[in-house]
Amino acid sequence: MFKTIDVKTIEKYQMVELLDEVKALVLESGVLHGIVTVHVPHTTAGLTLNKNYDPVVHSDILDTMHLIVPKEGNYLHIEGNSAAHIKASLFGNSETMIIENGRIELGMFQSIFLCEFDGPRKRKVHIKIIKG
Amino acid sequence: MFKTIDVKTIEKYQMVELLDEVKALVLESGVLHGIVTVHVPHTTAGLTLNKNYDPVVHSDILDTMHLIVPKEGNYLHIEGNSAAHIKASLFGNSETMIIENGRIELGMFQSIFLCEFDGPRKRKVHIKIIKG
Amino acid sequence: MFKTIDVKTIEKYQMVELLDEVKALVLESGVLHGIVTVHVPHTTAGLTLNKNYDPVVHSDILDTMHLIVPKEGNYLHIEGNSAAHIKASLFGNSETMIIENGRIELGMFQSIFLCEFDGPRKRKVHIKIIKG
Repeated sequence: MFKTIDVKTIEKYQMVELLDEVKALVLESGVLHGIVTVHVPHTTAGLTLNKNYDPVVHSDILDTMHLIVPKEGNYLHIEGNSAAHIKASLFGNSETMIIENGRIELGMFQSIFLCEFDGPRKRKVHIKIIKG
Repeated sequence: MFKTIDVKTIEKYQMVELLDEVKALVLESGVLHGIVTVHVPHTTAGLTLNKNYDPVVHSDILDTMHLIVPKEGNYLHIEGNSAAHIKASLFGNSETMIIENGRIELGMFQSIFLCEFDGPRKRKVHIKIIKG
Repeated sequence: MFKTIDVKTIEKYQMVELLDEVKALVLESGVLHGIVTVHVPHTTAGLTLNKNYDPVVHSDILDTMHLIVPKEGNYLHIEGNSAAHIKASLFGNSETMIIENGRIELGMFQSIFLCEFDGPRKRKVHIKIIKG
């Protein structure tokens, strides 16, 4: 089972929760045991698993990423978004999770987020479920 | 085949090797060709593949992560562990490895580690093997 | 379907594109729907997805990684390549992508790169395709 979902980010830097969409697809697939791979097909956005409960954690993550990878620097890339490319490589673009008894084996406070590092933009997220 | 293992970390920052447990499950599964996904269901611990031979490499990794993501900062999250959340996103929470002829295709010095960034705690690790 | 490819890096720090090799294996496998896992079995090299079009993006990525993880530091590991080990954990060693209708669901400008952090060396890349 494969699905692409559309995400419209509205800020320059933003974490967009994807858990409901991924859970719904797992339910729809009827797969009880398997894996689900989520992939972000962009080079200035990433994918991460982190805390869903407290939105200030997202501010802390995004703000600290600015300190680690400054927006302005001796970058050669003329589009002005080198920092976003670097953050995407640091966070990665895919995560594979486990489906057991029809549910995703995430931690109680763990959720799935697209990380927008150069928005606002229209983004896509690919979700694939494999039985096994 | 799916298994959850329990890990008790004993330090604030620690890398806990998981290779023996993952190897044992691959053997037990009888799968000769496939993939194995290892997932850490926590938001203040990560998963990484790195060198198993020299424990000072782990000290270098953990110490350098403190320099990159300081424990104290202008963090909004009141639990005091924002740095751990950020490190978890930087390292990621899952790795998928390849099983070929019944063994995991890792490098000679490459092993699997849970990275504790906010211990000591009781942690879980999910391991899933898919044939194919 | 499983294949190991050999990569010879020629510089100390280098991003080596792997997309053609991975695409060719997907075609050869005849798999129309499934996943492809790419794994780098080394602890001083990583794997990342990023922009393929503009080589200065790669310079920006590699140069910034030196600022984030300096080559010289208070490292304990006597081989002098602790920075490379840390970069490998930050970028990760595997990515799982989705195959749909016989093609890899990557973004238009998104490609697959081995990241050499301690070259030049002979490196291996494992590619595994799972139908499902």
